[in-house]
Amino acid sequence: MDDDTATEILESTYRALCKHGYADLTVENIADEAERSKASIHYYYDSKENLFIEFLDFLYDRYTAKLPAADGGTPREQLSALLEIVLTEEEAAPGQEFRTALLEVKAQAPYSDAIQTRLVSLDQVLFERVRDIIAAGVETGEFDAAVEPTVAAEFLVTVIKGAHTRRVAVDHSSERLHETVIWYVDSHLIGDDLSGATP
Amino acid sequence: MDDDTATEILESTYRALCKHGYADLTVENIADEAERSKASIHYYYDSKENLFIEFLDFLYDRYTAKLPAADGGTPREQLSALLEIVLTEEEAAPGQEFRTALLEVKAQAPYSDAIQTRLVSLDQVLFERVRDIIAAGVETGEFDAAVEPTVAAEFLVTVIKGAHTRRVAVDHSSERLHETVIWYVDSHLIGDDLSGATP
Repeated sequence: MDDDTATEILESTYRALCKHGYADLTVENIADEAERSKASIHYYYDSKENLFIEFLDFLYDRYTAKLPAADGGTPREQLSALLEIVLTEEEAAPGQEFRTALLEVKAQAPYSDAIQTRLVSLDQVLFERVRDIIAAGVETGEFDAAVEPTVAAEFLVTVIKGAHTRRVAVDHSSERLHETVIWYVDSHLIGDDLSGATP
Repeated sequence: MDDDTATEILESTYRALCKHGYADLTVENIADEAERSKASIHYYYDSKENLFIEFLDFLYDRYTAKLPAADGGTPREQLSALLEIVLTEEEAAPGQEFRTALLEVKAQAPYSDAIQTRLVSLDQVLFERVRDIIAAGVETGEFDAAVEPTVAAEFLVTVIKGAHTRRVAVDHSSERLHETVIWYVDSHLIGDDLSGATP
């Protein structure tokens, strides 16, 4: 299959997932979105599971490309840009639908090693990006020298994931959560009077 | 229906949910766990949805009773006890199954006002308990005077929810997350040199 066909099918999978959720996702839904026959999807992917795994890999590439690179701006600016992207960008309706579907997929992880492996990669790439930005900020002196990049990144990634879950489960405003996280960065990563901020 | 019968059916719902997950949960599964006929469950609850809403209310009562009361020990000790309960207690196998099922339920929230209302109550009771403990600690001087209870509680609840999600989705150790949260409490809520910890 050529790249265009693959991209078209995977983008149709994205739209079908947003519309139907994961539990109700069928190859037929995907075929409808792609304006193709069900048979032509099956010609490329022998099962819904294989197509979905391919879709998670496609998502990983998109996600990695979307995260701000570790160049351009100071570490503080890079971290703000990253938080802006992961916390608020997807607040519009399609983003909320996608976030809901992704939470459903997360609940499937314990039942599928292939799905869990992809979710671990998505989690890991965010963790590493955050950790590297914090480490660079500690290096340049923009963040407090007592901040431990691994611990702070672990903490921030957990907060980001909690913000995503609460947005879906309890309809908690992203904006309020974004403010809370910015408060954390301002008060706990920045400032010379944070000598207590060691693990 | 007498209280014993209600409790028995709701406890059977808990076991069935852990075994089958939410998407695959049927009245038949619940009847099997209760060693009752499907008809006898339908006699008390006219739909799976109504039974499930009743189950979420039952869960709320259990959860509220389980959270440490705001008496006994210092606020610091109360907060540690609470974090211990919400982050680690359910690490054993049945807890993990329940946590997975609950994540599935959370992904259903946008489709059901009745489910979302119950999830909001569960989120709210945790938030209020954490906020009250932090406020008491600020009052007694055990926590830093600059800590804003509402902001710190909002933050901690988001971290707790993130820890739950990551445990299911990426099989992240609860122990590691528990340590990270304890580090936050130790470094950011306690200590006189945290004058920077205001929003």
